[in-house]
Amino acid sequence: MENVKHDALFRPGSVAIIGASRTPGKVGYILTENVIESGFQGHIYPINPNAEEIQGLKCFSSILDVPEEVDLAVIAIPARHVPQVAEECGKKSVKALVVVSAGFKEIGREGAVLEAGLVEIGRKYGMRIQGPNCLGLIDTSTPLNLTFATAMPEKGRIGFISQSGALGTAVLDWVLAEDIGFHSFVSLGNKADLDEVDFIDALGEEDEVAVILLYLESIERGRRFIEVASRVVERKPVIILKGGTSSAGARAAGSHTGALVGSFLAYKTAFDKAGVILAESVEELFNHAITFTRQPVPMAEGIAIVTNAGGPGILATDLSEKMGLRLAGLSGETQNQLRQGLPAAAATSNPVDVLGDARADRYSFAMEKVLRDSHVNVVVVILTPQAMTESMATAEGLVELHGRFRGKPIVAVFMGGEEVGEASGHLTRHGIPCYAFPEKAIKTISALYDYARFLKEPENPPVRFRDVRPDRVREILDRVREDRRVVLLSHEAEAVVEAYGISVPDSRVAQSADAASRYAEELGFPVVLRIVSPDVLHKTDVGGVVLNLRSAEEVRNAFNGILASIARFMPRARIYGVMVYHMAPRGREMIIGMSQDVQFGPLVMFGLGGIYVNFLKDVSFRLAPLSEPEAREMMEETKAYALLKGIRGEPPSDTEALKNTILRVGQLFWYFPEIGDMDINHVIVYGWGEGCIALDVKMTLTKD
Amino acid sequence: MENVKHDALFRPGSVAIIGASRTPGKVGYILTENVIESGFQGHIYPINPNAEEIQGLKCFSSILDVPEEVDLAVIAIPARHVPQVAEECGKKSVKALVVVSAGFKEIGREGAVLEAGLVEIGRKYGMRIQGPNCLGLIDTSTPLNLTFATAMPEKGRIGFISQSGALGTAVLDWVLAEDIGFHSFVSLGNKADLDEVDFIDALGEEDEVAVILLYLESIERGRRFIEVASRVVERKPVIILKGGTSSAGARAAGSHTGALVGSFLAYKTAFDKAGVILAESVEELFNHAITFTRQPVPMAEGIAIVTNAGGPGILATDLSEKMGLRLAGLSGETQNQLRQGLPAAAATSNPVDVLGDARADRYSFAMEKVLRDSHVNVVVVILTPQAMTESMATAEGLVELHGRFRGKPIVAVFMGGEEVGEASGHLTRHGIPCYAFPEKAIKTISALYDYARFLKEPENPPVRFRDVRPDRVREILDRVREDRRVVLLSHEAEAVVEAYGISVPDSRVAQSADAASRYAEELGFPVVLRIVSPDVLHKTDVGGVVLNLRSAEEVRNAFNGILASIARFMPRARIYGVMVYHMAPRGREMIIGMSQDVQFGPLVMFGLGGIYVNFLKDVSFRLAPLSEPEAREMMEETKAYALLKGIRGEPPSDTEALKNTILRVGQLFWYFPEIGDMDINHVIVYGWGEGCIALDVKMTLTKD
Repeated sequence: MENVKHDALFRPGSVAIIGASRTPGKVGYILTENVIESGFQGHIYPINPNAEEIQGLKCFSSILDVPEEVDLAVIAIPARHVPQVAEECGKKSVKALVVVSAGFKEIGREGAVLEAGLVEIGRKYGMRIQGPNCLGLIDTSTPLNLTFATAMPEKGRIGFISQSGALGTAVLDWVLAEDIGFHSFVSLGNKADLDEVDFIDALGEEDEVAVILLYLESIERGRRFIEVASRVVERKPVIILKGGTSSAGARAAGSHTGALVGSFLAYKTAFDKAGVILAESVEELFNHAITFTRQPVPMAEGIAIVTNAGGPGILATDLSEKMGLRLAGLSGETQNQLRQGLPAAAATSNPVDVLGDARADRYSFAMEKVLRDSHVNVVVVILTPQAMTESMATAEGLVELHGRFRGKPIVAVFMGGEEVGEASGHLTRHGIPCYAFPEKAIKTISALYDYARFLKEPENPPVRFRDVRPDRVREILDRVREDRRVVLLSHEAEAVVEAYGISVPDSRVAQSADAASRYAEELGFPVVLRIVSPDVLHKTDVGGVVLNLRSAEEVRNAFNGILASIARFMPRARIYGVMVYHMAPRGREMIIGMSQDVQFGPLVMFGLGGIYVNFLKDVSFRLAPLSEPEAREMMEETKAYALLKGIRGEPPSDTEALKNTILRVGQLFWYFPEIGDMDINHVIVYGWGEGCIALDVKMTLTKD
Repeated sequence: MENVKHDALFRPGSVAIIGASRTPGKVGYILTENVIESGFQGHIYPINPNAEEIQGLKCFSSILDVPEEVDLAVIAIPARHVPQVAEECGKKSVKALVVVSAGFKEIGREGAVLEAGLVEIGRKYGMRIQGPNCLGLIDTSTPLNLTFATAMPEKGRIGFISQSGALGTAVLDWVLAEDIGFHSFVSLGNKADLDEVDFIDALGEEDEVAVILLYLESIERGRRFIEVASRVVERKPVIILKGGTSSAGARAAGSHTGALVGSFLAYKTAFDKAGVILAESVEELFNHAITFTRQPVPMAEGIAIVTNAGGPGILATDLSEKMGLRLAGLSGETQNQLRQGLPAAAATSNPVDVLGDARADRYSFAMEKVLRDSHVNVVVVILTPQAMTESMATAEGLVELHGRFRGKPIVAVFMGGEEVGEASGHLTRHGIPCYAFPEKAIKTISALYDYARFLKEPENPPVRFRDVRPDRVREILDRVREDRRVVLLSHEAEAVVEAYGISVPDSRVAQSADAASRYAEELGFPVVLRIVSPDVLHKTDVGGVVLNLRSAEEVRNAFNGILASIARFMPRARIYGVMVYHMAPRGREMIIGMSQDVQFGPLVMFGLGGIYVNFLKDVSFRLAPLSEPEAREMMEETKAYALLKGIRGEPPSDTEALKNTILRVGQLFWYFPEIGDMDINHVIVYGWGEGCIALDVKMTLTKD
């Protein structure tokens, strides 16, 4: 968002409420009341042709009658009247609109037309629009409550952007009970103009926002989202809960917002690329937010657990391991000190068990020793209420220690209800997140580590090979288009990948059995024959492929056999000839694929190929363009990587060549978005230094 | 537990408190106070040689001085004095002891000796013992609070058994705040005598207990656990949270209770076999319990979601699909009725969106239509607080509907804090579980379905083939033992599985190159040669195997080559000869394995074999003995099953023969627990009707 518009939304000098009402309970009444009660310091102009005064404020019959400048107007009148008042706002040089009114795209075609008109008006006057069909906007910093939600949250450092208004209201109500403060709440509505990308950008600029949370069902500007989010994430964490991850959920989301919902896989890959943290539930979204706003990012691996009870310590340990978090090995010195200062029955290795009769002083003693240990970078402190337990004094001790060890996150788990309630509140108020169950603490620490890892990674530029021939690819694609086809023939697809430096087997197209056997002699035996036809997709199934031919005689017979078989199975198929390939020697069979995602562009796949690909699904994904580490990670993420490294004494495969092939595929599809999808199944990889080769390349262009 | 002991613990007529104290804050004081305040109606006898009266009750210096009979004694005195008072309790014919005192097995060798002595005393007098090192027992039904925990829960239908006392205290404190009622709480402590099996059995008999929850770190009597739990589960659900599921957690659990913790895999398999539900966190344990105690088990698939907000409905839909739960397709009639009764913008297919302005009457209308639909068997009702929302009236409507549709579980999700708090409490009190987030509702419904599925399965007896030769196996194993070996030679292992009706390739042991080539002629080419030596485990790695020999000449050369290679790599290896096998034709390569689990006995594994087994880990497990459906499920659970069914037009494999091989393996190891582990990698499966064959059988006996 340009800064001027940003200020208009988040720091307006004056606000007009179009559709302000004198009738309690009406949206226009609640809106006006909320603006006033939020303590907004600028001018407030209620607009309503049928009133002189609303809630003590002078009312105007049109925004054009307001004598002073208006920065921001909120519109809450029936949809059909919205375009007219938007026009008036434009004439009045209002900088931004918040359109609360429903009855636009979400109700169907008629509403969509109305919405398009509204966007047009905004463009004409350079006026940005939030909504329509949204709940509005809260900004506790200005302060300004421009919603018809009943509750205004406490001031805090969380910025929350929601594509579901109702989820937003529920959360606003919930956070009030949980003492969680917000900087801002933005309801996106139909996203006719301003969308999540604009608001991530805007909240990224706000120094008071420490963490940005989103509930999203769809992202339309996928590539822009990645750009903006990656930039913002370097300054503050962005955590997203994605609705519509299942096919049924996506259908429901579609009917709900009218947005085109892409595959969750593409979203997940995009979030990873941008360094965005994915939450799995509303609760997790806020649990993460609380920890992120209050605790530092851990400097390195190594979690220590300090507990007064074995069971919960074990549960925390179990989950840490399950989530791939490493427990710190305490130094000999720390263990010695703990042994000296704790009772004999205490466990002095990690998890440290200070025993059931630990009072506050024993907790503080153990915590300090553990925090001092250089192997420890995060501490989880668990307390269960037992006979001797001093929960409040223990909490005070933790707050004191937190002040002295600012660099190491402390997360508390105080289990129980009444006995720990006060202590838990004390911790939360003093910046130590406190959960009732160990699982929540560990999950949120895992998210902290995800973020820390992202911050540590250097920015890796996409790899661009120079020895590529886009002109050659252009030529082939143009010819296919001229031919009114979208499916490339095998040799065309092979020529495309070859133009980008990917090895394919030597081959020739033969029109006769004689030609085929002659080519076979030239290419060298053994050879493979494969039918060339735009109509035969599954060539093996109809006898269109014959492998391992070792003589001219065998080639001749196979050629005739293929034609006979096709004539029988698919008599109407157009046949362009039979391809003769030098048969590649055996090696490890991998797959490299690509499909264009509607939102995020080319999604590249790598994995175990051959007959296993369909049922084992041992594959990984990244969005093009690819950096060198991304291509490497793609290989490493698959289970097949163990095979490539060489198992049980077998020699390692040429993963270097394979990585370059993945990178070249990424570069090709980034440059040619008109290629809709591609499969190389399989890529055969040979031993280290011996390269790899692409067999059976399938490629399809986008329809338009 | 025998019934008389059960009554002694859960319905004692009189209780002695050995170590009762007059000093506030001491365990013996709190215990006495808790017994009195719990409202226990029987006689209470404080025992303390230094007091005349404790908390208004006459005190005795020894239990032998008590004039009346004593059913149950709780002991809370230093460990070293426990044996003596236990002796006295025995003489007094006390029926059961609850030993709260710590200082036994958990502190090391000395304590373990003391504990063994205590168990001995119990045996001598036929007196059962709970603990030592436990928190005691609460029974809200008698009522009796025999713990030193500060809080007594409300009366309810949950029975909770915990191996961690502190986790128990924390939970007791937490449930008080959450309005969750308990029937009983049992702290297991060191499980010197009574263990989880006894208490599952006992609570299984209690009609007032609707669900049994456990926190466990270890199970010692694994097979007995499966027997008892399977029986109890038919009457009421048993839900377990298992601590020590990770290797680090298991180490911590080991140091914590001194118990031998087995592999989580074996536990999980045992829980599945017994129909026990596994919870993943303390919170989930209780969320499940609340739903199980208050709602019926669903009759069939088909969940309907009714919501006043799109977002949360989508989140619920996403998670349902992720957990494999099917959303109901509403009947045409239901959809028509909904269309007629709801506003035009409402969604009338599942999830049903009653829109943000829905009042209580609209919720009731939609809920009734949905509940009436025969495709719907569970309803999740979601409410977010919006301007028109009537949360309390909506809750009342739900309670009314729940009364009329008793057979269909209703689970509520009322999101928010203050605005929904009262309504949420109303629902909970009237038997409708109410959560703040959709995820929790769906997870708990998934557990309900797991239980429903288990109840529907017929009990399947283990399969016992009659054409097996245990005598032959006995003979081979005895010979191996005589030979002071634990590793079987290949041909011995093959003979063992062959005796149980599993096909192996024809073979002979040759002592010379001439003999080898003669045998090869007899067996038929191609053949495989393999070294026979107790010292060579990885035969391929040292040149001990040669495949695909097609002539007498090749066999002769290979024989000499193998001996030369072994002489070079492992000059000290004992060589018993070279095995000549008829080489099995190619087929699908699977693996069948077995290992003896310390707690649960023979754990049978099935999966994809060959080079893929180690890195793809596409395997499934069941505990022997196996029923026919279990063997079938083992195959179906693997991804490789798609391969066995035949993919892309390939013929299906002989899964019938494979299933029988798995069953025979299960029978063999159930009968011969002295076989410690076994691997058949691979079992080659041929086309349907062509059977399968076991290649390369490795088998080891247990050490003792």
